[in-house]
Amino acid sequence: MLLEMISTGEEVLSGQIVDTNAAWLADCMMNLGIELSRRSTVGDRMDDLVAIFTERSKSADLILVNGGLGPTSDDLSAEAAAKACGVPLVEHAQWRSHLEEWFSKRGRKMAASNLKQCWLPQGAVLIDNPAGSAPGFRVQLNRAWLFFTPGVPVEFKQMVNEQFVPFMQQQFRQGLATRLCKLLTFGHGESALADRIDTIALPAGLTLGYRPSPPHVEIKIFARGDAAIASQDVYVKALRSLLGDAVVSIRFPTMAEEVHNLLLAQNVTLALAESCTGGMLSSQLVEFPGSSAYLQHGVVSYSNAAKIALLGVDAATLEHHGAVSAETAIAMAVGARSRLDSDYALAITGIAGPDGGSAEKPVGTVAIALCDRQQSFVQVVQLSQRSRTLVRTMSCAVALDMLRRHLLGTPPLVSYPFLPARQSYREAHH
Amino acid sequence: MLLEMISTGEEVLSGQIVDTNAAWLADCMMNLGIELSRRSTVGDRMDDLVAIFTERSKSADLILVNGGLGPTSDDLSAEAAAKACGVPLVEHAQWRSHLEEWFSKRGRKMAASNLKQCWLPQGAVLIDNPAGSAPGFRVQLNRAWLFFTPGVPVEFKQMVNEQFVPFMQQQFRQGLATRLCKLLTFGHGESALADRIDTIALPAGLTLGYRPSPPHVEIKIFARGDAAIASQDVYVKALRSLLGDAVVSIRFPTMAEEVHNLLLAQNVTLALAESCTGGMLSSQLVEFPGSSAYLQHGVVSYSNAAKIALLGVDAATLEHHGAVSAETAIAMAVGARSRLDSDYALAITGIAGPDGGSAEKPVGTVAIALCDRQQSFVQVVQLSQRSRTLVRTMSCAVALDMLRRHLLGTPPLVSYPFLPARQSYREAHH
Repeated sequence: MLLEMISTGEEVLSGQIVDTNAAWLADCMMNLGIELSRRSTVGDRMDDLVAIFTERSKSADLILVNGGLGPTSDDLSAEAAAKACGVPLVEHAQWRSHLEEWFSKRGRKMAASNLKQCWLPQGAVLIDNPAGSAPGFRVQLNRAWLFFTPGVPVEFKQMVNEQFVPFMQQQFRQGLATRLCKLLTFGHGESALADRIDTIALPAGLTLGYRPSPPHVEIKIFARGDAAIASQDVYVKALRSLLGDAVVSIRFPTMAEEVHNLLLAQNVTLALAESCTGGMLSSQLVEFPGSSAYLQHGVVSYSNAAKIALLGVDAATLEHHGAVSAETAIAMAVGARSRLDSDYALAITGIAGPDGGSAEKPVGTVAIALCDRQQSFVQVVQLSQRSRTLVRTMSCAVALDMLRRHLLGTPPLVSYPFLPARQSYREAHH
Repeated sequence: MLLEMISTGEEVLSGQIVDTNAAWLADCMMNLGIELSRRSTVGDRMDDLVAIFTERSKSADLILVNGGLGPTSDDLSAEAAAKACGVPLVEHAQWRSHLEEWFSKRGRKMAASNLKQCWLPQGAVLIDNPAGSAPGFRVQLNRAWLFFTPGVPVEFKQMVNEQFVPFMQQQFRQGLATRLCKLLTFGHGESALADRIDTIALPAGLTLGYRPSPPHVEIKIFARGDAAIASQDVYVKALRSLLGDAVVSIRFPTMAEEVHNLLLAQNVTLALAESCTGGMLSSQLVEFPGSSAYLQHGVVSYSNAAKIALLGVDAATLEHHGAVSAETAIAMAVGARSRLDSDYALAITGIAGPDGGSAEKPVGTVAIALCDRQQSFVQVVQLSQRSRTLVRTMSCAVALDMLRRHLLGTPPLVSYPFLPARQSYREAHH
């Protein structure tokens, strides 16, 4: 079965609203093991609608059309469907009395424009909409069934779950079962990952995909068929052992969430000191409910004066080594940790750009330190110079990865293939 | 000119990621006065790609294709383009030496899979990608130019701005001159704005659009033709006088950027104290280069201990009024300001949820204070309970709006139509 979706509406086409119905449908279909073969978006223009209904009905078996069933003049889906099928619109007497009853029950007067919603293409099968005034309907055209649904998300979802899915399952025999598994990685580029992974044979029925989503790369392993689902487990295990702790998570979509959960599970506390990231690291953790259990405080020490006054960094350290240095990063971490005697502290100080770089310390130079009560770990990395946001995002990710590795009991300082450290050492506290 | 977009990739088709590139492109085209006629999405399957390139090239004049240029085996766009055009892939020697140089400059080894990115359809015009390893390219097929761009957003946007738009403008003569003007507003809902704006007649040739983008609502006034462009200025002036200081900016896309520029222009300094927003406010300002000129420090005082130790909040204040109260917010702001004698300080303390609420102070209760050397302003607002992120985002926006109004010399405390304050007062310092 070839399944497609057509989204209608100027504001979806023009990017003014994100097509959440489309994402929801695709996710819902994937849970049923069904892949969409195409999704198209057109505006509220009669010619475009008639053209796309006609054209796609020659290729697909089932087309879910979303939107354009409302009462206003820019809602054209029923009329366009009638034109594409070469039939007139006819009033659906049953839906008209249903609507009249619906409004009178609620003590509301039915607007004249609602009457338009009772007119469907001749021969169309009406689909009940228990949540709104626009009925759905389906028509057959060329090789396809076109299934029309309202744009209002709550009405759309109910109609898909209660009407579209049963219709599809009855009309089209389902194929094989499917399952998707994802690995979140950090520290390797997409191509470096692919080179390593290609050394393991991919079992039949599995497909492999990569999604770079800075600072992470996500690896997706899709299985089709019971045999493939069985071999998926073995393959994923082999991948994890191949990639080691470059795999950040198989449960969570971001490193911040993985670290958040590790901190909660270990019942430890954390303090933060941020310069160039300016609260981004702190904000990434506070995103998750429950972060107050471990995050005692964060200090955005943007100025040297703040590093001295709020974190107790020695003015001599700043003068001798500079604000962006391994020594200052350690002093910031140690100072932040000691304020409330937290178990751990992370500190970031760097040059996010576009200005402020020098020959010795170009834009993108960032010093990142982790400390506990016994010791500090620090590294100075050279990040991309092209985007202030990217420098800040990557700095947070490196800091979180140091803490993640430390919480897992593995060395926090590693050499990332995509990011050679300029300086990297451990220092015991006295 | 008929312009279409084709998005490729399983994860876009399957709804695992939202197609932000598509929304960005549509918005970017709208700013140029160009409407897309269709957008299509297909997965990473060779047959589907070849079919859609062939098919759409018969209808459109210009097709922007996004994604599928990466180094891995599921990146099929170049090969599919070659098949659709009936030509072989040929290695682009120039891009190969460019890549080799690019990697060696960074002291990194080029992965074997990157070599794939040097193979383009025979006759294709290479498009430089200064931000990544995947070149763009364009080919002519049937009546259309197909313009291939990488999926990584930062690379995609740069290529569109620097290469695609100039190509489009040179290749296709534009019709009437167009101009877009945007007003960024805060504090009114979309329908409340529309009701007020509808009292002024819209001059011919202008179209009006609203884009709710929490915490803002953006009003777009689009002019087509020289006469309309002339009347746009008059109309925008009338709108601004109608809406008063609910208009945050006509220059910048966010309130944070507007405030950033006001702070720089007035050569003043700022300190921040954040509880539930957890560094989000600070991070929003640090996003802009030059913020170090005014931002002296920020304190994420997530725990009561941090409020006392780092900001000097009185333990009695916390005990009598609670951590989320007008009194604590003022004490946080005053404490933050005095640490380095900044000109201004903002403080936010609230219950972001989903837990931690009470009958008296439900989830979404947030106290926000602004102080200078002479006085403090504070308000306690009740925000939406349905999203932690929304509570935090709105809290930052209210705080920034208080500072914005104060910097402009108008009263910082106003009654927002969409957000009634539960408590709101000014307190002089002794």
